[in-house]
Amino acid sequence: MSKQPKAQDRKDVFNKPVREVLIASGDLELEDIDPNSSPGYDGDKASGAADLAAIGEELSELQERFFAASRAGAPHTILLILQGMDTAGKGGIVRHVIGAVDPQGVSHHAFKAPTAQELAHDFLWRIERELPEHGLIGVFDRSHYEDVLIHKVRGLSPAREIERRYGAINDFESKLADQHTTVIKVMLHISNEEQRSRLAERLERPDKYWKFNTGDIDEREVWNEYMHAYQTAIRRTHTRDAPWFIVPADKKWYARLAVAALLLDALKAIDPQWPAADFDVEGEKRRLADS
Amino acid sequence: MSKQPKAQDRKDVFNKPVREVLIASGDLELEDIDPNSSPGYDGDKASGAADLAAIGEELSELQERFFAASRAGAPHTILLILQGMDTAGKGGIVRHVIGAVDPQGVSHHAFKAPTAQELAHDFLWRIERELPEHGLIGVFDRSHYEDVLIHKVRGLSPAREIERRYGAINDFESKLADQHTTVIKVMLHISNEEQRSRLAERLERPDKYWKFNTGDIDEREVWNEYMHAYQTAIRRTHTRDAPWFIVPADKKWYARLAVAALLLDALKAIDPQWPAADFDVEGEKRRLADS
Repeated sequence: MSKQPKAQDRKDVFNKPVREVLIASGDLELEDIDPNSSPGYDGDKASGAADLAAIGEELSELQERFFAASRAGAPHTILLILQGMDTAGKGGIVRHVIGAVDPQGVSHHAFKAPTAQELAHDFLWRIERELPEHGLIGVFDRSHYEDVLIHKVRGLSPAREIERRYGAINDFESKLADQHTTVIKVMLHISNEEQRSRLAERLERPDKYWKFNTGDIDEREVWNEYMHAYQTAIRRTHTRDAPWFIVPADKKWYARLAVAALLLDALKAIDPQWPAADFDVEGEKRRLADS
Repeated sequence: MSKQPKAQDRKDVFNKPVREVLIASGDLELEDIDPNSSPGYDGDKASGAADLAAIGEELSELQERFFAASRAGAPHTILLILQGMDTAGKGGIVRHVIGAVDPQGVSHHAFKAPTAQELAHDFLWRIERELPEHGLIGVFDRSHYEDVLIHKVRGLSPAREIERRYGAINDFESKLADQHTTVIKVMLHISNEEQRSRLAERLERPDKYWKFNTGDIDEREVWNEYMHAYQTAIRRTHTRDAPWFIVPADKKWYARLAVAALLLDALKAIDPQWPAADFDVEGEKRRLADS
């Protein structure tokens, strides 16, 4: 139907399945992953931009079919969870990857510091409320993982509560999988030096001041504690139902390409189909001609 | 700051201010507006697509500044209300115009037939709940106007209640304007013949079946009643605070270009500014270098 070449006709832009290249493990060592690398991809920044545009077209096509299928009752949902240190590029992923698909097919939510009302509930309460509907691509910019990351590093919750949460998260995400939600958890992995350089840019450019918070520098003092908290959280919540992917993010173009490819992979696995007509096509054509 | 040319450096693509060309009036005669026309624009489909891409870039730049300003307390919001008969192109506007800006800056909602809970409230209750936050571009695909359009045509509410609603809508939208919300109400105006042709396409293409409802043809039987209801509703609710724009929509490319231009016009009128630093820039640079 479409003038675009079909997804399956296109050459894969990665030299290995992107899922396999980026998937975490239960004994992850974050130190072993170079934030400046571009695993599974042989090209450079220029080819990366071209490949992102091509993947964006595929995403846009498949997203429409995914949405259409849900209107006819297909129960699938996709939930992309973006985590990473400040400046890791979560916003850029939303703008440049999610921006490639129809806004009608996206449910985006950025989780901020919890409100008083949210704090009066279990940490997953506000998360449940933002779950995307069937047929939508949900995007969480930060998530329930903050409740085991900053809470651990800054001691906002006791150790026993943090422990409880790992289990609660696994139960929650397993339930999501049972409900036909494909959960894609992405850690955008940047280096300490790259963060310094990105923060410096925010201090150089008046059109970037609004993105800067003095607290961002305070957080750099506990960088290693954050890396440790990420590593522990990922090890404890990396499951078959809801796997983690570690995306090297010092190269913005690579991180965007990789997340786009993970999303495309998820849509292809669901393989949504255009719904059949639930009406008499020829009869409706006649009615229309007479109208 | 940006590598793009500044908005004010670009030549306007319309030969007259788009607001003036498309704005409705209190004695609107819909019959006098040709759905197949392209008022204020001298180009064709090809130049229209190029101009839409250029406006999209400007929109994307200004939207970021609009969002940034809100983080520093600017109270402005934009609300684009899209109305029109089935197949008029509301979804295409969202995909091709709203799709040009960062998904993080958009709050989109498609209003469907009201739920039992919504019906147990005043007709504006569900509308209020979906109002966009400061700094966002809100998009309503259908809206409270359904409650004076289909309700009038199909007699779902008594005439006296419809009368009450015109006033309630004006009060509501006036309050929005007081709250620094720029309300842009768009009627996508297609012809009966163009709708037949678009519905016929949905019946020809299996990838379009999901968009077809047998009820769409039933609605064609009361086409004139709908045109009359639109005309009355627009006359009664066209205010300085919340004006209506009649966008000829038989040419999809023109309708998209026109709505993009209306949106750009609204953003330029707000003229958002990058927030000043609320911290000591040089001091933070030193702290960052030491971190």
